[in-house]
Amino acid sequence: MSNRLRYGMVGGGPGAFIGDAHRKAINIDNTAHLVAGCFSRTLEKTKEQGALLGISSDRCYANYSEMAQKEASREDGIDFVVVVTPNNTHYEICKAFLEAGIHVACDKPLVTDSRQAEELKAIADEKGLLFMVTYTYVGHVTSKYIRDLISNGEIGTIRTVMAEYPQGWLYNENDDGGKQGAWRCDPSQSGKVNCLGDLGTHVENAVAAMTGLKVKRVLAKMDVVVPGRVLDDNDQILVEYENGATGINWTSQFAIGCDNSLRVRIYGSKGTILWFQERCEEVTLIREDGISQVIRRGNGAISQAAGKYSRLPAGHTEGWLESMANLYDSFAECVSAMKQGTFDSGLIDYPTIEEGIAGLKYVEACLESNEKGNVWVEV
Amino acid sequence: MSNRLRYGMVGGGPGAFIGDAHRKAINIDNTAHLVAGCFSRTLEKTKEQGALLGISSDRCYANYSEMAQKEASREDGIDFVVVVTPNNTHYEICKAFLEAGIHVACDKPLVTDSRQAEELKAIADEKGLLFMVTYTYVGHVTSKYIRDLISNGEIGTIRTVMAEYPQGWLYNENDDGGKQGAWRCDPSQSGKVNCLGDLGTHVENAVAAMTGLKVKRVLAKMDVVVPGRVLDDNDQILVEYENGATGINWTSQFAIGCDNSLRVRIYGSKGTILWFQERCEEVTLIREDGISQVIRRGNGAISQAAGKYSRLPAGHTEGWLESMANLYDSFAECVSAMKQGTFDSGLIDYPTIEEGIAGLKYVEACLESNEKGNVWVEV
Amino acid sequence: MSNRLRYGMVGGGPGAFIGDAHRKAINIDNTAHLVAGCFSRTLEKTKEQGALLGISSDRCYANYSEMAQKEASREDGIDFVVVVTPNNTHYEICKAFLEAGIHVACDKPLVTDSRQAEELKAIADEKGLLFMVTYTYVGHVTSKYIRDLISNGEIGTIRTVMAEYPQGWLYNENDDGGKQGAWRCDPSQSGKVNCLGDLGTHVENAVAAMTGLKVKRVLAKMDVVVPGRVLDDNDQILVEYENGATGINWTSQFAIGCDNSLRVRIYGSKGTILWFQERCEEVTLIREDGISQVIRRGNGAISQAAGKYSRLPAGHTEGWLESMANLYDSFAECVSAMKQGTFDSGLIDYPTIEEGIAGLKYVEACLESNEKGNVWVEV
Amino acid sequence: MSNRLRYGMVGGGPGAFIGDAHRKAINIDNTAHLVAGCFSRTLEKTKEQGALLGISSDRCYANYSEMAQKEASREDGIDFVVVVTPNNTHYEICKAFLEAGIHVACDKPLVTDSRQAEELKAIADEKGLLFMVTYTYVGHVTSKYIRDLISNGEIGTIRTVMAEYPQGWLYNENDDGGKQGAWRCDPSQSGKVNCLGDLGTHVENAVAAMTGLKVKRVLAKMDVVVPGRVLDDNDQILVEYENGATGINWTSQFAIGCDNSLRVRIYGSKGTILWFQERCEEVTLIREDGISQVIRRGNGAISQAAGKYSRLPAGHTEGWLESMANLYDSFAECVSAMKQGTFDSGLIDYPTIEEGIAGLKYVEACLESNEKGNVWVEV
Repeated sequence: MSNRLRYGMVGGGPGAFIGDAHRKAINIDNTAHLVAGCFSRTLEKTKEQGALLGISSDRCYANYSEMAQKEASREDGIDFVVVVTPNNTHYEICKAFLEAGIHVACDKPLVTDSRQAEELKAIADEKGLLFMVTYTYVGHVTSKYIRDLISNGEIGTIRTVMAEYPQGWLYNENDDGGKQGAWRCDPSQSGKVNCLGDLGTHVENAVAAMTGLKVKRVLAKMDVVVPGRVLDDNDQILVEYENGATGINWTSQFAIGCDNSLRVRIYGSKGTILWFQERCEEVTLIREDGISQVIRRGNGAISQAAGKYSRLPAGHTEGWLESMANLYDSFAECVSAMKQGTFDSGLIDYPTIEEGIAGLKYVEACLESNEKGNVWVEV
Repeated sequence: MSNRLRYGMVGGGPGAFIGDAHRKAINIDNTAHLVAGCFSRTLEKTKEQGALLGISSDRCYANYSEMAQKEASREDGIDFVVVVTPNNTHYEICKAFLEAGIHVACDKPLVTDSRQAEELKAIADEKGLLFMVTYTYVGHVTSKYIRDLISNGEIGTIRTVMAEYPQGWLYNENDDGGKQGAWRCDPSQSGKVNCLGDLGTHVENAVAAMTGLKVKRVLAKMDVVVPGRVLDDNDQILVEYENGATGINWTSQFAIGCDNSLRVRIYGSKGTILWFQERCEEVTLIREDGISQVIRRGNGAISQAAGKYSRLPAGHTEGWLESMANLYDSFAECVSAMKQGTFDSGLIDYPTIEEGIAGLKYVEACLESNEKGNVWVEV
Repeated sequence: MSNRLRYGMVGGGPGAFIGDAHRKAINIDNTAHLVAGCFSRTLEKTKEQGALLGISSDRCYANYSEMAQKEASREDGIDFVVVVTPNNTHYEICKAFLEAGIHVACDKPLVTDSRQAEELKAIADEKGLLFMVTYTYVGHVTSKYIRDLISNGEIGTIRTVMAEYPQGWLYNENDDGGKQGAWRCDPSQSGKVNCLGDLGTHVENAVAAMTGLKVKRVLAKMDVVVPGRVLDDNDQILVEYENGATGINWTSQFAIGCDNSLRVRIYGSKGTILWFQERCEEVTLIREDGISQVIRRGNGAISQAAGKYSRLPAGHTEGWLESMANLYDSFAECVSAMKQGTFDSGLIDYPTIEEGIAGLKYVEACLESNEKGNVWVEV
Repeated sequence: MSNRLRYGMVGGGPGAFIGDAHRKAINIDNTAHLVAGCFSRTLEKTKEQGALLGISSDRCYANYSEMAQKEASREDGIDFVVVVTPNNTHYEICKAFLEAGIHVACDKPLVTDSRQAEELKAIADEKGLLFMVTYTYVGHVTSKYIRDLISNGEIGTIRTVMAEYPQGWLYNENDDGGKQGAWRCDPSQSGKVNCLGDLGTHVENAVAAMTGLKVKRVLAKMDVVVPGRVLDDNDQILVEYENGATGINWTSQFAIGCDNSLRVRIYGSKGTILWFQERCEEVTLIREDGISQVIRRGNGAISQAAGKYSRLPAGHTEGWLESMANLYDSFAECVSAMKQGTFDSGLIDYPTIEEGIAGLKYVEACLESNEKGNVWVEV
């Protein structure tokens, strides 16, 4: 315990959903200990939040630069930083911590431009630092199980992938979704994309993580539908993968009745796999006999690599926080191994900066396709 | 009963699935009485089938032309003909009966070319004859209920429609699906399309019937995926409707685990409607409060126009045959009204030749889009 | 076709649900031809209904006795009669037809007293006549498949069976359910039981047919719950089977939201089977690995004996009428075999009078248990 | 944070599922800080576990008595203790902490005898101490929402309650379920009951908490089914409630395919509520129109009292740990209020020792009923 990891956070001030969620996820397994932060734009609010979180006042920082430098120079400085600020600030913050020699876990989408992302990767590589992008949904035991099924050839060659992530909370033209919605719909904070950046990158990443397929080209239709919006809120994208498989990725923010409905359906030459985030404790596998097998976390069939992340017996539902916690468990294991000099890249079982870059390139290709009138664009 | 309608059938010989299904559907409500037929290409087989069906030998015909002429000249001749032969023969057969003054019910897709279809329509219009195209799935009570909900404005303005009809029975490159599969996959019998003609026309029609939307343009990707096939077996189509709504239509024949999985999801400005053919006894309606309301046939909420087609109390499941029977119930009511001189077009509650033409134009636009490299084509 | 069976019907006048449903079910496969009837208590209404059904006036009878005698004496008389009158009239009507030498298909519950039932059985046996009791739900392909799975030992020794059949239509003390409800709730027409006779007999029969288990003893709690009712509307029954297995049978008429919710869950030493009438196209089978296998009609796994009753491909939903039709298909096959002298009892695949007797004995034991204060009573 | 609560734990040594789960649940919201423990029967193992959990060596105790006394005498002593040992040790442990003036949270079933439980209650009352019994499943947001719906009269007068909690993990006579199963099936550790104590008390509590109904009398059938077992593994219990409502409670440990399948179905005079623990993010509410409304955590309809426990937006699934965390959140709020002198019993939103006593009396009445041959026994 004395060698439990220490972490700091940038973002996650009072009322911020995602920062709080990351902290809760890390808490579950007591994976690391929060000891420093720059939670808000004002030092006052940061200290307020720090007090609530039990952080000593001298480790509540006025800005991220100061935090990176000071933490790097402490003997008991943070082992990694969690970056949960709006997207358009990720680049500078991550860069500061990398340059200070601190491992980084950053929320998705990584940055707003793939060149920035590649720059971050170059720094991390040069300095031998770990970089996780917290694509939550690949942390589910069932997501990992699907990855294992497919890499074992259980459904043969993949032929088409139907993936979607509709939400409904921004359907109302008279309601911008409060704090969460406001910045997503604001080009000055979100850049050129809204829905595709927020949801579409999860779709791209979930498909890639589960199937191992790489996107070759896209044909994107990005629409601004709800009156008064200026950024995309409905994206319908045709995809071709490098192995010749096809697919459709759909994301929406006005699909009334959809909460957080990431769904992936994978059709192979020997079987089908169905997964729905809101039923994240189960996978449906259909083999050539056409029988739908509903496999639940806890069934012996869940493979070893995936099942080790289970905390509770079958039927004692695990959910979103556990999925995020699984990412941090692997990340922390890697950070610890780094500290102890036992790190091996085979330990990595979380989404890295490469996945973050892939997401940005996907978004950029979609934007280009859409701007050119829905034509095919290579990724 | 003495004035019960009489009908004849072309196609539906021994072993033919769809002809038998039409007969069973008509039987349920005893809607009309089968009295004549040209069931097969040889008179011998037609007579064999006729005997099994209780048809007198002199009304078993060697070919459809003879049947049309002779039946038209009998006093007790058939009131309508049911055409359930392969698609590429529909045009000539339908034309023969229309020219003989006989109402026609024809299986979908109507013909192989929209000009032929318009020619048939011209004849029917000129002669004042009724023409039904048997798009089965719009006959469900729940399909009709959705149409009523939407036309009453219950979900506001439609924003996007996600529709799909995957099947899995042709997934295996070593199995062409037997008699049913063989002709569908054979260009000499199916023409230029397979999957899109068989399934895609149902999708187009179901969306049109439920929503009232008209397709403005399409961007189609039609793929030949299963090794050895020469016609499309997976179609992914972006759609724009005349009111500005968008949508995706997906059809496939290799989606293992999908039996007959026509699914329509309609997202409006005030609500969402979900419908799945394999759960055809229920509709999910979600209003702005986000609560999923599962409305079953038999609930009082099923509107008057739709509910009149119920035969059984709630929970006594009705299915595919009842859906087809509903089409024939309305068609027969119209034919009877014609005979009695009381016909009014407001009586029509079945898919007409105009829906048949719309389906063909949709297919033609998709083919053009695909051939041109997935570009937008106006319908 | 000329040798198609002829049948008559007693009951099923204008507005009667169940008579009409039997006719529609028989129509589907054109199993037999309705040629005679005594549909109502007045000859006038019988003739009215007969005219609608295309029956010649001289075969519309004033009473069932006359019908039995006259039909028995005709050369082209009916091959079997369908009895769909209220329960308390079944005994006399069935007896009249049996004594006239005519096979009988009678709705459930068979009669109101097991001694009457045994008397009918004795007559049928003596005269070599067939007698079907139309327990609809054992006609489903999936019901038959479950029977086959269990008799093949697929789930090992049965340990407990949880069966239930709640409905909700009589929940309202101010609404007696119209014509259908009124007679069921009236002791002068229903006898001593309402809910248990109407629904509980289906439960008992479904469990028996699927599992092969025989009830040894029951402990019944029969409650009259909705204010104003005088007969049971909620029955909760502990069951012990002869093999030592236990179970609970629950039926209710005030379970709001339940339409026709017959559900059987069978737990064995090697697996579990789940079946729900409102999802009658599928069976859930769980083996020792805990994976839920959802097997649909149309999957190859549906066994030969069960699958032969399929009319439509998988996903083309069959429902309640098809289930009833399956009973008549087997019954008609047996009647035909009788006529041709090829009958063998192995042909019987419908519920016989013995199942009808078992149902009555079950009801009688429950009544005794309830009257004695919920004690165990041997069946 | 400096005033964050401190807690200790008895039980929860290496490999113990439930102690770890309690710790994780408390961690999520950082509700309290673990500072002392007696985790195992040997001091060595306790210290080992303590080290892993970051507890200083001097607060790792050899036995619970010493722990109670020493912690009570420290100025920074624990605010409450969590007792997660086997049932038959709860009484003495809880007593020791209560007598030392420390609030108690104890796992269920509370003790093995209701008189012991009443003795504990008397001590707690006398000393003004709080006592929580951790019936996990009433902590779900949806459980609380159901309680609110019913107390607001949304489904009218409750008529019958069908409750069940089948599991399947002990189905195999050759597998005693490992460490977890072994003690449950062993009379020397579990007392007279196994399944009913482990699962049946959850059922009784869930129904009581949701409906407010009190059990008047029971008629219990407790069976030992799997060969080789000596304690009940299948319990089928008829219940009558004080308001005249009836119900059935079923629990099983051999129901293959059931993981943790606590299900409660509540039928009232104006509506029905359905709840299933494995789908704990949703409630089905059916009103008199028969439409099934699926209400999800996150829908506005979730009432204020229940909804305040939500951490994540709708669709970001919360599960078992969050449910347990909700109990501790309320308990900790009450403990804090006690410390600050602001406690009011209206703050209590967790299961108290009274619910624990009710559970034991229920078990005792069932045992008596079963021993007397399944007769009614007043609770």
